[in-house]
Amino acid sequence: MLSKAQISLIASLQHKKFRNQHSLFVVEGIKSVMEFVHSTYKIQKIYATADAATKLGKIPQNIKLEELNEVELGKISQLKNPQGALALVELPITGTFNPVELSGKHSLVLDDVQDPGNLGTIIRTAEWFGITHIICSIGTVDCYNPKVVQATMGSLSRVQIHYLDIEGFLAQQKLPVFGALLNGNSIYETDFQQEGLILMGNEGNGIRESLLPRIDAAVTIPRIGKAESLNVAIATTLFCSELARQQLRKD
Amino acid sequence: MLSKAQISLIASLQHKKFRNQHSLFVVEGIKSVMEFVHSTYKIQKIYATADAATKLGKIPQNIKLEELNEVELGKISQLKNPQGALALVELPITGTFNPVELSGKHSLVLDDVQDPGNLGTIIRTAEWFGITHIICSIGTVDCYNPKVVQATMGSLSRVQIHYLDIEGFLAQQKLPVFGALLNGNSIYETDFQQEGLILMGNEGNGIRESLLPRIDAAVTIPRIGKAESLNVAIATTLFCSELARQQLRKD
Repeated sequence: MLSKAQISLIASLQHKKFRNQHSLFVVEGIKSVMEFVHSTYKIQKIYATADAATKLGKIPQNIKLEELNEVELGKISQLKNPQGALALVELPITGTFNPVELSGKHSLVLDDVQDPGNLGTIIRTAEWFGITHIICSIGTVDCYNPKVVQATMGSLSRVQIHYLDIEGFLAQQKLPVFGALLNGNSIYETDFQQEGLILMGNEGNGIRESLLPRIDAAVTIPRIGKAESLNVAIATTLFCSELARQQLRKD
Repeated sequence: MLSKAQISLIASLQHKKFRNQHSLFVVEGIKSVMEFVHSTYKIQKIYATADAATKLGKIPQNIKLEELNEVELGKISQLKNPQGALALVELPITGTFNPVELSGKHSLVLDDVQDPGNLGTIIRTAEWFGITHIICSIGTVDCYNPKVVQATMGSLSRVQIHYLDIEGFLAQQKLPVFGALLNGNSIYETDFQQEGLILMGNEGNGIRESLLPRIDAAVTIPRIGKAESLNVAIATTLFCSELARQQLRKD
């Protein structure tokens, strides 16, 4: 039986303020819940229908699982069509971030990406292509927003996401910065080297002006048709793919 | 002044049945409306606030423009935040489609893509990369669905979209068919030749089994991380980009 207090706690986690206050966020769906169970995240509790609980299979003994019927699950789910399982997951402890972790690889830097669907898709696709670190400006939508979590399809459990003052970060670090701009060299002719940062701008405004001096190489996705712009998740995807293509060719 | 009949007509155009009955669909936003005005589509009427009407600038004399205040526009807009202008656009007349139009280029074939946002993003991105024809299975979401139109950001006005029995179509036509599958050759090592069809599957089920024999080359987007799948709009984007890359290299 769900208590009113539980229902209202879970509902409050739609908002960043309460996620931070309770240090918890919500993951929904059998597959996504499984991926978090098998990650470094700590699960506080899983709510699941009997059917979903069977599908979840064996879960570690220290994780509490409460069985609910579908009506009860509907009361705590943030989805139009609840997907059988909902986990309360602890926010990771944000320690000091050591930029050395970014050496020898490519990472993304997002400047105020606003749309939860875009951030979720970026996380999912970046992870497909082996990106392990995403640096987000403070103004970027929170990656524990339920719509972001949903759109990552579990990939959030495998990517490290850091919210930083990216102006200060980019000023201090030494990796080459590849900036997605409209007037740069073709992405297909850019040598992304062995390591670096891919800097992507906000949906409406692109990369903020004060960051432009930090860009070592302006990179453009060639346009053949007449569309005025590409969605930022699509553009980020194309960078991740090109990194993968160049990497696979070098291997 | 908006009449009740106008308001209810425009509201009805959210549904395919009424779009077909009235042979009309809705385009919203100043930029998108402008792109349709300057396309081969026929505009029946534009509704705009005084401010938006100024931004629209000179429009052809044969297009009726009705100025509304923001409250009135809110009554007919299908958006949470109405964007100043709304056009009623006539559905194009679907003539007999001649597959010869597809010669010498690459086109997309979509097998039951369901999500309006995905189809809209596919149209927008395909157009960026110079794709001019998209063949949709009968079960694909309608491209004049307001959410699709919105997501195309005007690109819908420049791409020809054909709804067909794709089983019959693929059986009869002679272009090489490149199918997005999980067990094919790397997209980065596939020669897409000078012409062909890129076949993309449904969000949940991929390409239907009966179409597999029609595929000449199974093509896969290499995975480096552990994500289980890519969103279909993302995957389609990667094909369009790879076509562009190979094309630009050959030019």
